[in-house]
Amino acid sequence: MALKKFINASEDLVEEMLEGFVAANSDKVEFRDERVLARKDAPVSDKVGLVTGGGSGHQPALIGYLGEGMFDAIAVGDIFAAPGFEPCYKAIKAADSGDGVLVTIGNYDGDKMYFGMAVDELKEEGHDVETIIINDDVLSSDDPENRRGIAGEIVVWKVAGALAEEGASLEKMKKLGEETLSKTRSAGVAHSPCIMPSSGEPSFEIGPNEMEIGVGHHGEPGIERVEMKSADETTDILMEHILADYSYEAGDDVLVIINGLGSTSLLEMKIVFKRVKEILDDKDISVYESWIGNFFTSMEMGGFSITLTQLTEETKRLIDAPVDAVQFPLP
Amino acid sequence: MALKKFINASEDLVEEMLEGFVAANSDKVEFRDERVLARKDAPVSDKVGLVTGGGSGHQPALIGYLGEGMFDAIAVGDIFAAPGFEPCYKAIKAADSGDGVLVTIGNYDGDKMYFGMAVDELKEEGHDVETIIINDDVLSSDDPENRRGIAGEIVVWKVAGALAEEGASLEKMKKLGEETLSKTRSAGVAHSPCIMPSSGEPSFEIGPNEMEIGVGHHGEPGIERVEMKSADETTDILMEHILADYSYEAGDDVLVIINGLGSTSLLEMKIVFKRVKEILDDKDISVYESWIGNFFTSMEMGGFSITLTQLTEETKRLIDAPVDAVQFPLP
Repeated sequence: MALKKFINASEDLVEEMLEGFVAANSDKVEFRDERVLARKDAPVSDKVGLVTGGGSGHQPALIGYLGEGMFDAIAVGDIFAAPGFEPCYKAIKAADSGDGVLVTIGNYDGDKMYFGMAVDELKEEGHDVETIIINDDVLSSDDPENRRGIAGEIVVWKVAGALAEEGASLEKMKKLGEETLSKTRSAGVAHSPCIMPSSGEPSFEIGPNEMEIGVGHHGEPGIERVEMKSADETTDILMEHILADYSYEAGDDVLVIINGLGSTSLLEMKIVFKRVKEILDDKDISVYESWIGNFFTSMEMGGFSITLTQLTEETKRLIDAPVDAVQFPLP
Repeated sequence: MALKKFINASEDLVEEMLEGFVAANSDKVEFRDERVLARKDAPVSDKVGLVTGGGSGHQPALIGYLGEGMFDAIAVGDIFAAPGFEPCYKAIKAADSGDGVLVTIGNYDGDKMYFGMAVDELKEEGHDVETIIINDDVLSSDDPENRRGIAGEIVVWKVAGALAEEGASLEKMKKLGEETLSKTRSAGVAHSPCIMPSSGEPSFEIGPNEMEIGVGHHGEPGIERVEMKSADETTDILMEHILADYSYEAGDDVLVIINGLGSTSLLEMKIVFKRVKEILDDKDISVYESWIGNFFTSMEMGGFSITLTQLTEETKRLIDAPVDAVQFPLP
């Protein structure tokens, strides 16, 4: 069976994609190295830099979030693979105007290792760098230390990015970013894998009638494989896990993200949102804002995740703050 | 095989989706009837109304384009099916502040029939209504009269919507909308169908190694079925058809749309854009603006289309004009 993807040689895929991305957005972004993209005006004076990095295959994440109000620089890896030490090092350096840099990455070993090495090196060179490791996926482990980062990462990025534009200190960004993360929980489901462009193999195997609760962005195993269920039943399962893990209370204002993994339609996501809102309405929890769309995909994977963040007056302001990243705001 | 879609009863799908959509965007849109959505402030005084309608399953089109700078009201049909007379009639009426209404729809029989009846009826009642039928898909027929409307519709909507906000007359909107359409050409390809939620059947049949050049948004037959090709080869084929059908000339400024049909990733679309830009660079045609993303989908169909519009100073200004629709701008 032929690979049904519009690519050229798979070994050129990331480079060609980056070239197309930069060509389409040359008013906002530029290469700083083969695998480092940055805002054209980075490093921005009197502003803490915000940096991330990780594997490709998740667009619009990560590179779509470069720009005012979000990231200054991003280190780009191969499909689902961590960027090496050098891109991590160069991305942080590109973002530092002398006011320091906050690195916010998902809780994945490769990303942590290479960013960790880069941060150590840059600290020795006198740069002020702090790191937030994002672990919002409640279904990836009972132990929060071992939980993966999924669509909840976007909330932390938006809050930290808005703070940076306001001129907040690195210390303040790290503190409020971690507080926001502590009020954020996600849970996802998938029924279809994506196909890896290099091998032509699916990211995970699943039966024609099955879906998997908790499967990760890269096809990491979830907690339970069940028969396909309705939108409402599926939403109820995910919301139960989220609500059991953090006490969202009557009177709370929350941000809701319904994140599509690639091939799940906006039509389906809106039906899911309708159910999420019914559940929250019943508990007197108010939806302050909703982001419904493909924010953090796994190429053409079929499935979605739900994220809730309990908001404060301060994070509401930061969520609402203007942002002019390449692909944010989103549908 | 189970239907791998997150829906509830398929007969409730459109209603539930609309409920979720309105709940998520209640600051901007509201129901005016079961199958009519409108901007909350419609009809807007001293502004010509802009209206469309058509089948569901194309999100963010059509309903995502409700809002300032784009649509005042939209008539919503079932999946891939025209809305009936009543929603068409009510959508136009909801948009008319007394300054008239421009209806812009794709060249599909059902949409034309019901909107045609509604327009006739409303004209008799004294409303000033004009219609543009959009037919940008060069691969759907040699005869422009029989060509379907695909992602090029969005260009006409953006131009007409921006004109309306500026206070242009209905006559001017129709004239410039049609001129813009006359400078717009699209061509698409697909390698995978979407699954119809009511029947569980694919929208078209295709082999595991095949793709089809020119297949329509609803699975309408294209012009040629070929083996899967690389991104560059596929892009070259589509661009040849577009460039053979309209004389985009050296020195022109164009808008390029790379529109994903659902499950084709942004990663692939950027590789396609890179090739489109190379082809245009070679001809000294300048990309003034590019829109790359899922603007007009067919649920989870796999494929994309390319659209080119030759811009004038006036349409550049209108393309750049502010817009605050629910899901526009897009990634």
